[in-house]
Amino acid sequence: MRTLIRDGLLLTQNAQRDIVRGSLLIEGDRIAAVGEVPEGPVDRVIDARGHLVIPGLINLHTHLPMTLLRGVGDDLPLEEWLRTRIWPVEAHLTAAEVKAGARLALLEMIAGGTTCFNDMYFFADAVAEAAAEAGVRGFVASVFLDFPTPELTPDRMESEARRFHARWAGHPLITPTLGPHATYTCSDKTLQTVARLQQEFGGCLVHTHCSETRTEVYDVEAKTGHRPVAQLARHGLLGERTVLAHCGWITKEEVRALGASGAGIAHCPVSNFKLATGGWLPLPELWEAKVAVGTGTDGAASNNTLSLFETMKFMALGQKQHRWDARVAPAQRVFDAATREGARALGALDRLGSLEVGKQADVVLIDVRKPHLTPLTDPVSHLVYAVGAQDVRTVLVAGKPLLLEGRFETLDAAKVMAEAQAAAEALLQKAGVRPGAAQQGI
Amino acid sequence: MRTLIRDGLLLTQNAQRDIVRGSLLIEGDRIAAVGEVPEGPVDRVIDARGHLVIPGLINLHTHLPMTLLRGVGDDLPLEEWLRTRIWPVEAHLTAAEVKAGARLALLEMIAGGTTCFNDMYFFADAVAEAAAEAGVRGFVASVFLDFPTPELTPDRMESEARRFHARWAGHPLITPTLGPHATYTCSDKTLQTVARLQQEFGGCLVHTHCSETRTEVYDVEAKTGHRPVAQLARHGLLGERTVLAHCGWITKEEVRALGASGAGIAHCPVSNFKLATGGWLPLPELWEAKVAVGTGTDGAASNNTLSLFETMKFMALGQKQHRWDARVAPAQRVFDAATREGARALGALDRLGSLEVGKQADVVLIDVRKPHLTPLTDPVSHLVYAVGAQDVRTVLVAGKPLLLEGRFETLDAAKVMAEAQAAAEALLQKAGVRPGAAQQGI
Repeated sequence: MRTLIRDGLLLTQNAQRDIVRGSLLIEGDRIAAVGEVPEGPVDRVIDARGHLVIPGLINLHTHLPMTLLRGVGDDLPLEEWLRTRIWPVEAHLTAAEVKAGARLALLEMIAGGTTCFNDMYFFADAVAEAAAEAGVRGFVASVFLDFPTPELTPDRMESEARRFHARWAGHPLITPTLGPHATYTCSDKTLQTVARLQQEFGGCLVHTHCSETRTEVYDVEAKTGHRPVAQLARHGLLGERTVLAHCGWITKEEVRALGASGAGIAHCPVSNFKLATGGWLPLPELWEAKVAVGTGTDGAASNNTLSLFETMKFMALGQKQHRWDARVAPAQRVFDAATREGARALGALDRLGSLEVGKQADVVLIDVRKPHLTPLTDPVSHLVYAVGAQDVRTVLVAGKPLLLEGRFETLDAAKVMAEAQAAAEALLQKAGVRPGAAQQGI
Repeated sequence: MRTLIRDGLLLTQNAQRDIVRGSLLIEGDRIAAVGEVPEGPVDRVIDARGHLVIPGLINLHTHLPMTLLRGVGDDLPLEEWLRTRIWPVEAHLTAAEVKAGARLALLEMIAGGTTCFNDMYFFADAVAEAAAEAGVRGFVASVFLDFPTPELTPDRMESEARRFHARWAGHPLITPTLGPHATYTCSDKTLQTVARLQQEFGGCLVHTHCSETRTEVYDVEAKTGHRPVAQLARHGLLGERTVLAHCGWITKEEVRALGASGAGIAHCPVSNFKLATGGWLPLPELWEAKVAVGTGTDGAASNNTLSLFETMKFMALGQKQHRWDARVAPAQRVFDAATREGARALGALDRLGSLEVGKQADVVLIDVRKPHLTPLTDPVSHLVYAVGAQDVRTVLVAGKPLLLEGRFETLDAAKVMAEAQAAAEALLQKAGVRPGAAQQGI
């Protein structure tokens, strides 16, 4: 199967960040030519005139099924939000509902140009199945916690992780990972189990929450004598195969430790702001230390969208405001975070994160013939400061179209939305939760 | 002319913030019924099933023609941005280019559900004409500054303001205002002139920048012995007919002064963050003092969009993060800021800002049958945290459709965009400015 994306403006995100006017040739699941393409027959032509062509965006930290909880419990302190809204609803989750929520998230991510995600949630099989069916690339964790989930008791988590890993290892789209929830929810023993499994699985990715709130940092220090970063390090979980979500409350010393370790960070500014964590990712220092910082939306319940375009804008503007310096977090580096740096954090820069020959054909086309994208003078500026998720017109993952000129090719959008609405309503009713000030269907 | 908007979910934004499932009847330029509507013949029916119906959003501080400078000079310190990008380009502005930029802004605002704006720029006639032709409601300032603009020398500003006021006073859509740029750019004498004209014009609105940066506050204090708020007050310019843009660097004492004066504030969080002003609007204190705080985008050059949905999200999330408290700036109050509080700041709550019988029919329909707006549980949450400008489907101002199911009714979108692109390119060439790292047409 050969696909030609013809006559666009290609933001390659290669090492030189070349911007090339031209075409992109895809053979099978890979990019075969960029810019100038050889003549020859093709099976599909996609017209890219008036479009930016970019590598698919990477959502480095999310919880897909939490789309079901979108708009349920805004404007509440974190503890009250968890206690009165999130946990009561999650207690009633089943695999079927998780799958309905994951499908809704996949629909939203495809619509918004996200081609790869790094997820952690209960019922990981349901998430992985939904992603594989939708054709989206996913890194999916089996979760470890010291208390029971709606799916599992703690004593069964290790065997479940083995089963999950065995099922999905080698899948072309799904990469199984290990997801110790956080150092405040995982004992030394649990972290040791995860470290052992990581070795056993040949160094698979570990995905965890780290230093999201000040309370968490203090609690872990009080309980273990170590701050979260050190607590992970002493159990052998801080390395090139680790992705830490948040890190809003890390010290300069921890920045150095992260730089030395090779661990990556999923920065989730929208969720951090919405939950009022108060912390600020020390981005210039992390970049100085060569840490791979990618972009995450976190779950829709604390965002409330899965748009990485919005996340890029919050990342750039938040850092400028925090540092009183508009030069901090320039557009190109923020766009890098959502593409090639996310890939680097996942240990996948050799196959993802840029439009280069031989890489996976995860490609997004953005229609810039819009009032809010006129005039077009600097396309990188537009991507970070003006493009919205709904400017995305076409999305391919591994060469396969998931969205083609606005039409979903692998999911039945109306069905997915109806099933998610029904699942959310049923869950809220079971849990006795009334969302917001004004619960209103339409 | 009678228009029926049938079977939507109406977020009335009335005093009780009633949310009503039903219809909206418009007669001429006014709302005739809300919820239950009388039977009878109508000239136009708009199907609102699957839509939220809200009062049109109010952009309380902007510079429409600066759309031409969108993406020209991001990631630069304020002074360098002004000196190397904005001023050199603005020096070449003509009325024709200002009109082209204003038309582009009007197109973007209509597309994004903004029905009323409060503007300050050179060539105010061009802005007012463009708005009147497009059918958008505008408060348009004649500018006062102590140095020449591309349009005027300072000695001609008073006579120009008289002419401008005489031309537009009484227009159904355009309200002429007075725009002393700021206390750091207007001398005592200039401010006195404006105060005198305000009296002469029967108490028309005064629109000014105030306390946007710390440097500005210090400079004004050094020059005049007064901080900007006091400097306005001592010249009689702090009152119910004043809108102050920004106020990121005001003290608690100034909050009290603002509360006592009745002045309104245009909060522009996206621009403030992007320019790294470092300040934070003391929102809870301003609300405590009953100050009308509305939402502004500022010009597109420092945003880079004119989306008030995005501004609402930045407003809510920025305040939560700044105060370490997720309860601060709840969705309903932020939605109020973009509607009825903006109207109150303009002294127009009697005719704008909510869907109530007798008010102007400035109405926006939002299609919520989208992945990122599913499930629909709390519509107010969605408006602030999930809706994007491109979810807007239909927009009416004074009962007249400007956008009808996605089609522009008063502007030729392709023509407006082409003319703006050409104007921007010509301006940059004249000024010798190369935008960004990667100037690329498409």
